[in-house]
Amino acid sequence: MKYCSTCGAQVRRAIPPGDTIPRFVCRNCGTIHYENPKIVVGCLPEWEDCILLCRRAIAPRVGCWTFPAGFMENDESTEEGAIRETWEEAQTRVSLMSLYAVFSLLSVNQVYLIFRGKMIHPTFGASAESSEVRLFREHEIPWEELAFPVIRETLTCYYHDRRTGQFPLHVGTIGDHRPPVA
Amino acid sequence: MKYCSTCGAQVRRAIPPGDTIPRFVCRNCGTIHYENPKIVVGCLPEWEDCILLCRRAIAPRVGCWTFPAGFMENDESTEEGAIRETWEEAQTRVSLMSLYAVFSLLSVNQVYLIFRGKMIHPTFGASAESSEVRLFREHEIPWEELAFPVIRETLTCYYHDRRTGQFPLHVGTIGDHRPPVA
Repeated sequence: MKYCSTCGAQVRRAIPPGDTIPRFVCRNCGTIHYENPKIVVGCLPEWEDCILLCRRAIAPRVGCWTFPAGFMENDESTEEGAIRETWEEAQTRVSLMSLYAVFSLLSVNQVYLIFRGKMIHPTFGASAESSEVRLFREHEIPWEELAFPVIRETLTCYYHDRRTGQFPLHVGTIGDHRPPVA
Repeated sequence: MKYCSTCGAQVRRAIPPGDTIPRFVCRNCGTIHYENPKIVVGCLPEWEDCILLCRRAIAPRVGCWTFPAGFMENDESTEEGAIRETWEEAQTRVSLMSLYAVFSLLSVNQVYLIFRGKMIHPTFGASAESSEVRLFREHEIPWEELAFPVIRETLTCYYHDRRTGQFPLHVGTIGDHRPPVA
């Protein structure tokens, strides 16, 4: 951020009065421009003993595999966002079962909200965002070609939980490279 | 948003190629400025059979009661944000127990992530953001002076669940005034 989105003047980095964190503050009108994490809503679509993964057609990590997930939009709920992304990326309709994981990704300032979803029909397809979409049994999961650490972590939790038959909510942090607090 | 934060030129509202939603797009450099929901992290701090509420000292809803909650910052996890807000607003330390509610607030494009927290000591205090902080038993909750619908909804769920002794995750939408889909 170099310019104020309100008045077009230059911004500077400063800690506003009463705050503790440096923000972008307009040199002209004084508007404070806060930056906050973005929400990524996603879905693990299930069909029988398979889950549906998408091969990414867009950067980053073109050619690698992910479950459907993308930035939550304004004017939608988390559940609606997860269903929308599943349709857009995998061309399949899901009925959500439960929120399965809430992962904070510190390195990119994203929070993933991942639902378990039941596919309504075993139909799906490629899209502008996915060059290939297919159902995987556990032994077929392309562990070495997953797009992001959060995808690997979620699938690891999922197959662990499937052995127990319990799918509790997972809340955690991924990619915490900060020095430990004394 | 009137000006591009990257180059300072004026923006216009347009649907980018391959997109379906109008965005602010720079007339000069073409940067697309996405707008997404913000995360509010909060905590229901418990001490014995009481919960801790704060009387708001800042707009909006000055003088009304809330549990500690505020915008999640970059470079922190959801849990760290909830603990930080509880300290900043109520001057008390909590040990988080579980994620209790994920509420999408459509009218303000916020997603509340609310944890249950156990107060480590029964000490707390007012702050720049809270003119008064106190412990409430259920019959003392100021239902008519709560700051926002999400506060009322969370406390309603909480006291319902306390009767059963089970505190499942609540996922839902608050303030959905959209016309029903046919």
